[in-house]
Amino acid sequence: MTEAEAQHDGTGRVELSFTVRDRERATHRQVRVPPGVTVFDSASWNGIAIDSTCGGHGTCHKCRVRIDERCPTTPHDLKTFSREQLDAGWRLACLVNATRDLEVEIPPLTTRPKAATVGVGRQVILRPAIQKRYVELAEPTLADQRTDLARFLDAIDDLEPAPDLAVLRRLPPVLREADFKATAVVVGETLIDVEPGDTTREQYAIAFDLGTTTVVATLLDVTTGTPVAVASALNRQQPYGGDVITRISATMLDPQALDRLRAAACETLAALAGEVCGEGGVDPARVYEVAVAGNATMTALVLGIDPEPLGVAPFVMSAAQPPDVLASEVGLALHPRARATFFPALGAYVGGDVVAGMLASGMDRDKRTRLFIDVGTNCEIVVSDGDRILATAAPAGPAFEGGVIRCGMRAADGAIEVVRLGDDVELGVIGDVEPRGLCGSGLVDAAAELVRTGLLDRSGRFVSDDVAKEVAPSLADRLRMLEQQRVFVLHRPTPDAEPEDCVVLTQRDVRELQFAKAAISTGWTLLLEELGLHQDDVQQVLLAGSFGSYLSAAAAVRIGLVPALPLLRIVAAGNVAGEGAKMALLSVRERAGAQALLGEVTYVELSDRPDFNDRFVDQLAF
Amino acid sequence: MTEAEAQHDGTGRVELSFTVRDRERATHRQVRVPPGVTVFDSASWNGIAIDSTCGGHGTCHKCRVRIDERCPTTPHDLKTFSREQLDAGWRLACLVNATRDLEVEIPPLTTRPKAATVGVGRQVILRPAIQKRYVELAEPTLADQRTDLARFLDAIDDLEPAPDLAVLRRLPPVLREADFKATAVVVGETLIDVEPGDTTREQYAIAFDLGTTTVVATLLDVTTGTPVAVASALNRQQPYGGDVITRISATMLDPQALDRLRAAACETLAALAGEVCGEGGVDPARVYEVAVAGNATMTALVLGIDPEPLGVAPFVMSAAQPPDVLASEVGLALHPRARATFFPALGAYVGGDVVAGMLASGMDRDKRTRLFIDVGTNCEIVVSDGDRILATAAPAGPAFEGGVIRCGMRAADGAIEVVRLGDDVELGVIGDVEPRGLCGSGLVDAAAELVRTGLLDRSGRFVSDDVAKEVAPSLADRLRMLEQQRVFVLHRPTPDAEPEDCVVLTQRDVRELQFAKAAISTGWTLLLEELGLHQDDVQQVLLAGSFGSYLSAAAAVRIGLVPALPLLRIVAAGNVAGEGAKMALLSVRERAGAQALLGEVTYVELSDRPDFNDRFVDQLAF
Repeated sequence: MTEAEAQHDGTGRVELSFTVRDRERATHRQVRVPPGVTVFDSASWNGIAIDSTCGGHGTCHKCRVRIDERCPTTPHDLKTFSREQLDAGWRLACLVNATRDLEVEIPPLTTRPKAATVGVGRQVILRPAIQKRYVELAEPTLADQRTDLARFLDAIDDLEPAPDLAVLRRLPPVLREADFKATAVVVGETLIDVEPGDTTREQYAIAFDLGTTTVVATLLDVTTGTPVAVASALNRQQPYGGDVITRISATMLDPQALDRLRAAACETLAALAGEVCGEGGVDPARVYEVAVAGNATMTALVLGIDPEPLGVAPFVMSAAQPPDVLASEVGLALHPRARATFFPALGAYVGGDVVAGMLASGMDRDKRTRLFIDVGTNCEIVVSDGDRILATAAPAGPAFEGGVIRCGMRAADGAIEVVRLGDDVELGVIGDVEPRGLCGSGLVDAAAELVRTGLLDRSGRFVSDDVAKEVAPSLADRLRMLEQQRVFVLHRPTPDAEPEDCVVLTQRDVRELQFAKAAISTGWTLLLEELGLHQDDVQQVLLAGSFGSYLSAAAAVRIGLVPALPLLRIVAAGNVAGEGAKMALLSVRERAGAQALLGEVTYVELSDRPDFNDRFVDQLAF
Repeated sequence: MTEAEAQHDGTGRVELSFTVRDRERATHRQVRVPPGVTVFDSASWNGIAIDSTCGGHGTCHKCRVRIDERCPTTPHDLKTFSREQLDAGWRLACLVNATRDLEVEIPPLTTRPKAATVGVGRQVILRPAIQKRYVELAEPTLADQRTDLARFLDAIDDLEPAPDLAVLRRLPPVLREADFKATAVVVGETLIDVEPGDTTREQYAIAFDLGTTTVVATLLDVTTGTPVAVASALNRQQPYGGDVITRISATMLDPQALDRLRAAACETLAALAGEVCGEGGVDPARVYEVAVAGNATMTALVLGIDPEPLGVAPFVMSAAQPPDVLASEVGLALHPRARATFFPALGAYVGGDVVAGMLASGMDRDKRTRLFIDVGTNCEIVVSDGDRILATAAPAGPAFEGGVIRCGMRAADGAIEVVRLGDDVELGVIGDVEPRGLCGSGLVDAAAELVRTGLLDRSGRFVSDDVAKEVAPSLADRLRMLEQQRVFVLHRPTPDAEPEDCVVLTQRDVRELQFAKAAISTGWTLLLEELGLHQDDVQQVLLAGSFGSYLSAAAAVRIGLVPALPLLRIVAAGNVAGEGAKMALLSVRERAGAQALLGEVTYVELSDRPDFNDRFVDQLAF
């Protein structure tokens, strides 16, 4: 043990240099991880495969690597290696904590690990929490009176799960009825069931993106990593309000509301679970785990935790990481002892959905300076310089959800999502139908185009009719008055329709958008400053959420929602929360990575900063 | 790491030499423990105190001892000690596994540990699984947005429990209503509740001895180790049969019986819990844990596990160690998240009650050769030579429970428990009332006295009237005929009462007793042989169970139920199962000791041995 290790203060990263051997050659990879992570996880998180079936519990004795002889030995090492091998530095990778820079040699793999591509191009080596093992046992005799449990677990050499009481009830009859041929169902560290015969082909899980507005369920075959079915539905909590604040308020006004909101969320999840199982032709009793990525309020509500302290300053959560619970606890009728796991949250407004998004986008595994923006009613912003990661939340207001925008609507059929202003107005409409309103990306696009053509000045005010005729003569007649404010007519159902019958952008809409974009850009400006960075230093911007996928990079840059970067650096990342939930189900190591983010990410509270308002005003201009 | 360690094969014992310093002087103690046990547990199990508040989780950093510099260091050691101290061999005792002989220096204690005397003179250092911590917290602010859970746990420096979901629901309202002054309730590794204000004085647990016939509950104050109230009751499963075999048969005949037997056991426990809480003036919601010591069948039934495989060869249990469950799972209305813990079993007929008894009698911590006999319908026998421990079960039959004995009865008021034959018959009767029958110890006593006086010959046959008049003239008229067999009249309600109205010992009773004692003595004879010992080598015999307390040592020796030893070596150990349950509640280290017995004790199946029947016949004679 060196002095450097002893004094390690827990911050910073350690560097691991992997030499990966296969039959023909050796390749080299260097990775940086937080100190204390195991060598096995360090490799897995970076897509480097090491043999293992037990998943890092020291039980399968397969993850053999060569480090150096100074590395402490564990009793498992002593059982696995000869004295010569130990002296040569061979150790089990899952039991070595990387507390200093290490050089690690990985021998050729004996089995090619299965992997799946999920998230933002992340290659995930499959190691789900769900594991099955089929065994054929010798029947007990007077000379072999091992307990049913011991007989069963002795036949499984790479796992040592603890049994549920329910399993102890089922073991005696199931083993005897099935001639001692049965399948162990393990989730995490727990033996949740024993099934007669060989059921190893059926191993399913459901990933939930539990959004305030929309809930998405993906049924996964965890043996292959393949999605079997996907379904989405509106969150049945909608009647209690469109955003988290109105739902929190509901619980403050009515003591029954928490139970009702909880029930509504549970019903939403249950309906979707039924839908994906039906569509995939999967018996719900063969679904053994679900992962839920939701913001802090959605997570609290579905677990029956009073969200009031989330809604009032100083915005405090009950806990960052909810414990795993039975899936039945959140209303799901799957396997009776199926587990539900939840993503941890960094703060009341940087919730498990964002942590899932960070996982899916690899925010902690990339050396580039990256900016992650999840745009919604509440906008979450994360910046990483490849070493430190900062996160914050910006109260964007409902502009991006279409809430207070006159012709605003969700990104559904009929929503204008693209606006081009030339001699005339060109619109991109979801579903290619008659335009009915304006979704968030259409709103940004419209404002950006109006600024570009000079119909909106940089302060966000519509120009006078005289100026309009000068800068954009063919569009000037679309500037009209409606209810004492100036509006721009984007779509007329008929050539002579009155403004009140048209899809318009109002002066007040523009002001809402300005406030939202100012909040967001103030957020990332302050985070970049905190890291000593300029916006030009940002190498990639990830726009997340369904909104992010619709938003054109050019429009986002033009109105200053994102830094002014070459457009190729701005990437729509899609539903990263749902992708993160899938990753958690496909790999316990990725799940551990999500938890590690809690220690790696610094949450910055913006509302506490004295300079926030000044900066906000600076950012109001387009 | 030395060669000796690396090659340790996990058997045998390692020797620890403790030097215990206090302010004035140093004392020395040598103890032997199974390899791999921590230094901290090794000391605790032998009544040697080391400072600690966290109970061996490396979190309180108080259990400082000096070993030697070769001892591996852990990250906790690095945080606790200076480089000079590490080089001088200082380590945290709870994190050092004794894998070789060690010399350990214990510095003077900073706090005197509380201890209680339980079991067979066992001094137990209090370290219950139940722990409370009262904290007064700073209220959250925008500058300190820690979650409620983090704020709460940060204030508790020596424990790191995981929260129940229920606690996450209760934390926000309880902390806010109680001005952030509250008490953590921890059981084992779990934070089960947060209580407003300071409730640290109220910490209760209930130890249950769940017998086939009688159930005993002891309410314990775990802060002092003091019993607050004790109550006992008949097991409400009695209507399904007097012994485990009839109850197992009931479940095989009627598919409803398992549920009913489970309910009956749960009701028995619940009624007793209510009784001890009422008597002790303790709010049941302040009882946070129960421990249950029962035989394998009683444990299976109360947990709803089908006992059928226990009742038919090859006598296989579902599992040796049931998982901890909520106390509500066994019908107890205590704290809603109170835990129930069960003793592990060594075999279908050497159950958790025997393991609890071994714990209470320190079978694994004594260098003497000891024989432990729990006499009942099923008789469990354990032999230790101070190194190896063997256990077996002997089917004693119902003789000792009064089942098939003509005038047999349980050891209750009116039962003859002592018999002395001189010129007349002298009887010791429980409750000092008119004799109504004969309990197990009275049965043994009567037979032994009849053999001594020559009225029974060594083969177990009543002598002829002629011989009787010769060997015991004043008693010969008590030898009578009743229903075609010879009987000895022990008690006549009136001088001229007919035999059928008297308390008698019949020839058939004597045969039952012979079979029982033959089974038992064959058991310990074979176990002693297995260890290469003769019965004279036995230094102590512990007679356990309520039967053991009533049985006179002289009578037991005389009929050969126990080895022919000086009577002082034969000790009535009392209700050791209940004492073991108390120990488990008062000390997690003792509880771990009970689990360690599973690995240390070898179960010997007698019915499988070809020489069993021969030996049995040899032992039939008195």
